[in-house]
Amino acid sequence: MDAVEIVEVAPRDGFQPIGPWIPTATKIDFLRRLAATGLRRIEIGSFVSPTAIPQLRDGAALVEAAAAIPGLRPQVLVPTAKRASEALAAGARFLVYVLSASESHNRSNVRRSVAESVEDYARMLDALPADAELRLNLATAFDCPFEGRMPVGPVLDLIRRLAALRPDIEICPCDTTGRATPDHVAALVAAARACCPEVTAWAYHAHDTYGLGLATTFAAYQAGVRVFDAAAGGLGGCPFAPGATGNVATEDVAWMFGRMGIATGVDVTALLPVAADAAALPGASSGGRARVALLSATERCAAG
Amino acid sequence: MDAVEIVEVAPRDGFQPIGPWIPTATKIDFLRRLAATGLRRIEIGSFVSPTAIPQLRDGAALVEAAAAIPGLRPQVLVPTAKRASEALAAGARFLVYVLSASESHNRSNVRRSVAESVEDYARMLDALPADAELRLNLATAFDCPFEGRMPVGPVLDLIRRLAALRPDIEICPCDTTGRATPDHVAALVAAARACCPEVTAWAYHAHDTYGLGLATTFAAYQAGVRVFDAAAGGLGGCPFAPGATGNVATEDVAWMFGRMGIATGVDVTALLPVAADAAALPGASSGGRARVALLSATERCAAG
Repeated sequence: MDAVEIVEVAPRDGFQPIGPWIPTATKIDFLRRLAATGLRRIEIGSFVSPTAIPQLRDGAALVEAAAAIPGLRPQVLVPTAKRASEALAAGARFLVYVLSASESHNRSNVRRSVAESVEDYARMLDALPADAELRLNLATAFDCPFEGRMPVGPVLDLIRRLAALRPDIEICPCDTTGRATPDHVAALVAAARACCPEVTAWAYHAHDTYGLGLATTFAAYQAGVRVFDAAAGGLGGCPFAPGATGNVATEDVAWMFGRMGIATGVDVTALLPVAADAAALPGASSGGRARVALLSATERCAAG
Repeated sequence: MDAVEIVEVAPRDGFQPIGPWIPTATKIDFLRRLAATGLRRIEIGSFVSPTAIPQLRDGAALVEAAAAIPGLRPQVLVPTAKRASEALAAGARFLVYVLSASESHNRSNVRRSVAESVEDYARMLDALPADAELRLNLATAFDCPFEGRMPVGPVLDLIRRLAALRPDIEICPCDTTGRATPDHVAALVAAARACCPEVTAWAYHAHDTYGLGLATTFAAYQAGVRVFDAAAGGLGGCPFAPGATGNVATEDVAWMFGRMGIATGVDVTALLPVAADAAALPGASSGGRARVALLSATERCAAG
């Protein structure tokens, strides 16, 4: 079985919906503790509108702090070429450019059509320094909160257009709403790999909103993906929908792969208290199961 | 895509660990409400030691009440031929005989070796009336709380021996501890179907302790299983381990299959308030995600 890489996204996707301000020092402490569990890639923040997402307004400070954590490959999310420039100016060297497969979600996020975002992406590519790494996140690749289920064909066309602009990067179809089913994920990934063999790597980003986070993560693995986003404590959700669940939990993903004999490099036992502290942040919605199971005596009294 | 059948086990596996007594009338009300959502098969209770599991001591009353619910096929769990006789005497006509694949779990449950339980099962078969239906549950088919991971080979040998005694029944390997991974479930089911083609039907029983309930349920579906156990509200767990999660939630399983275009016959929207009431029972541990997602406005504000 091949090894996999887990990309820890709690500091970005997980902290993003949390209302109460998390002090920058607390965030840096989480980065250090997460890195100490063996997580090498962490999405440490975003360069986005501080009005839209005030929680992530300290991206520059986090870039600086992350550079001092040994062995860490910090990545930051950017939704436009303009924000990419800001991230690069702050010292970021691993950018995650995000655009949405669905028109209405892209408009809602960046007030642009998908075609305009593709042009903007091309502009960013032209200006990208040679020493910068890049990943492309494709939000709403399976389902859109406004348009519903996304058919594979048009999403595949978009991936083909984006891959043609620059194939030597990692492309990550994202299940933004958590409504992707394993068959859907397997179908899109298999088709994308077949149509764009020149793409260097494929990643997958699961939400666990309907409990399908591990099912779709495993489906993506079976279809050839080896890089998976996850958030410690299953953080995420939406500040306006109490109880809504977020990203698939890092500890669940690491436990599943570990149990299958697939190396992740993550020390699940060391991760549990970090995940528990993330889940206990004021205003956080948490999720995941392995944490509760492993911190309790469940396996001693399972009876039926 | 083939249709699937969901067997609702909340009234048995879900209620079993709940300490505070659930009045028989409340249980009967749940049976009626669950049946009204389209669930045709419900595991309504057990015939087991009332000292060991006091919550399930009203099996006979539930058998009588369930017979009056139109369209319902009630099944009851029995761990011995003696309890099977009691269940039949009370009017039950669909028995689920359970034994464990692991010696230590079987001893812990029924104070017998696996070989002794196989003999007891054979005795029960000899005494079974022609009008009685039967399912065979194989607990700890993947993992045992005492012995750890169960290798496929010996479990397959046990299934072969049991199937030889009577092939025209449904056999259900159970992930008792929730530690089965999708590759493991797929491997055992595929091997069992190949070695015992005479077995009428295969079922699968998932726990969601580590978040793998839907992943293994889907893996079993891909391997050919069409009957799935699940508990409304994700009830289950252990009264001595607060927060421990239980069976995979019926609403999650029904939502996943429905989303894939696979008919379950279950009205998920109608099930949600029943699942919520089950989750709110005093002393209950609940789980599942679809309920929270569908009862909140999650899909309106998913943003990343």
